[in-house]
Amino acid sequence: MRLRDVGEFGFIARIERAAGPARGPVVVGIGDDAAVLRARPFEDVVVTTDAVVEGVHFRWDRESPRHVGRFALAACVSDLAAMGARPLGFTAALAAPADLPLRAADALTAGLLEGARRHGCPLVGGNVTRASETSLTLTALGAVARGRALTRRGTRAGDRVLVTGVLGAQALARARADAGRGRLARVPEPRLAAGRLLARTPGVVACIDVSDGLRADLAHLLGPGRHCRVSPDRLPVARGFRAACRSLDLDWETLATTGGEDYELLFTVRPQGPAAPRLARRLGLPVTELGRVERGAPAAFEKGGFTHF
Amino acid sequence: MRLRDVGEFGFIARIERAAGPARGPVVVGIGDDAAVLRARPFEDVVVTTDAVVEGVHFRWDRESPRHVGRFALAACVSDLAAMGARPLGFTAALAAPADLPLRAADALTAGLLEGARRHGCPLVGGNVTRASETSLTLTALGAVARGRALTRRGTRAGDRVLVTGVLGAQALARARADAGRGRLARVPEPRLAAGRLLARTPGVVACIDVSDGLRADLAHLLGPGRHCRVSPDRLPVARGFRAACRSLDLDWETLATTGGEDYELLFTVRPQGPAAPRLARRLGLPVTELGRVERGAPAAFEKGGFTHF
Repeated sequence: MRLRDVGEFGFIARIERAAGPARGPVVVGIGDDAAVLRARPFEDVVVTTDAVVEGVHFRWDRESPRHVGRFALAACVSDLAAMGARPLGFTAALAAPADLPLRAADALTAGLLEGARRHGCPLVGGNVTRASETSLTLTALGAVARGRALTRRGTRAGDRVLVTGVLGAQALARARADAGRGRLARVPEPRLAAGRLLARTPGVVACIDVSDGLRADLAHLLGPGRHCRVSPDRLPVARGFRAACRSLDLDWETLATTGGEDYELLFTVRPQGPAAPRLARRLGLPVTELGRVERGAPAAFEKGGFTHF
Repeated sequence: MRLRDVGEFGFIARIERAAGPARGPVVVGIGDDAAVLRARPFEDVVVTTDAVVEGVHFRWDRESPRHVGRFALAACVSDLAAMGARPLGFTAALAAPADLPLRAADALTAGLLEGARRHGCPLVGGNVTRASETSLTLTALGAVARGRALTRRGTRAGDRVLVTGVLGAQALARARADAGRGRLARVPEPRLAAGRLLARTPGVVACIDVSDGLRADLAHLLGPGRHCRVSPDRLPVARGFRAACRSLDLDWETLATTGGEDYELLFTVRPQGPAAPRLARRLGLPVTELGRVERGAPAAFEKGGFTHF
């Protein structure tokens, strides 16, 4: 069976059945002209859009369709986490060749719905269309107390730079897959609870999720005219990470600083704000202080990063 | 200049400049991890996603990039109109080959921003990525008084079926373009004000926008087990429409009933609800009563319609 055998509306009906009835903040779900979501009074709405394209962001020989769906949703929901928002729901636009096996299309949906349950972010609508390659464009909506969204703005010289979890794990997994040592399977965990806690922690200034790699995202967070020197021994990496990099003949520092797709939260805190150990206890996650924000042009460390064109 | 010459972040910066500063319901616009929008207290959030793909929904030899952008946004915002919602903002995910002329990419953006101003629906974020063909996935957000969204549900036998404006105009324009008589230029007007008025009119039951054509959308609106017989002399078409169809050797009824992309509102009203002339005065638009809803399987008229696979 191919996608064309069930058609656009047939495939949407399959998704609707798999997703089940609307619940929680979903007033109207899949199947109308638009979805209707209910935030609480005096909440702001947060919205973010992400796309993954076959041959650019994923390859069928390296990832299962289920993994593509799971990963794409984690990446999108991570932007809600970086704003300190709780999820309301998401829409999915699937573009695919008409001869895509129905099994693959169903597995993509299954991956999305698995992520939806895990992150408490229901699938509420979307679009299905023909295209020459497969792509998935997701838009996640969230809610945050009015005026309390955690943006990238506001960092000053003297603020401290911190990051949750470990870096480079996804880059290492991709390098392993490239070296023919298994398919991609691990899905990063969007830091939703941590983001909501940070948005309510006095002294926390600005936040971004590490999607393009520490170097590039640090530059986005600090903006022009500010930089932060990060000593390599401050870079948080998993146990065995350096040895694994060596065995693949890779420079561990490069992977940890430019790898991307870690989806940890990178944030700044005022000098008098909470220290890393207190934040770690509050968030229930490892938190590492990378350095202090300084005035002036960024050093080589903060330059560069992954761009698509 | 090609898209690759400015890169992903360079192109996003161009869009940001062209879009101007955040205003109205936009608390945080383009350039952060997500956008932040503010609805009024006790409003529901309405969200809809639409995609257009090169070679499937548009062709560069038939449409200008500006028209593609304008049209795509009108189609997406029309779903807000069909729910009775006012626009809050939209995100745009552009996928394009790296060698797309920068002029075309800028013109696509210009078309989106023109539509944004016209519909009061600002561009608040999105995504830019490489792909082998150009596509644009738009997600529009709107707001509606809590519990007052105008869905497709609730129509009963005896209700009347009405439609705004005229049908088949887009199908005729496409047929003209196919016959080599000019490029596509006209952009349908999403019926935003009419949708909001219908949502507040007692007796109005359910609503859909005519995107797939009257036949298909009437089937969506009435659901299984209900139908409506529409006499051809009831079909609202523009002055000169029949003659123009004849000159292209086309059947005018087929164009008016299956053409699609008219983006008029098709809605049902209880027997005791307002009549067409009163609705026309209220909406400031032509309103035509097509017929009454009957129990039973749909006749041939309501079957069929455009599907993508």
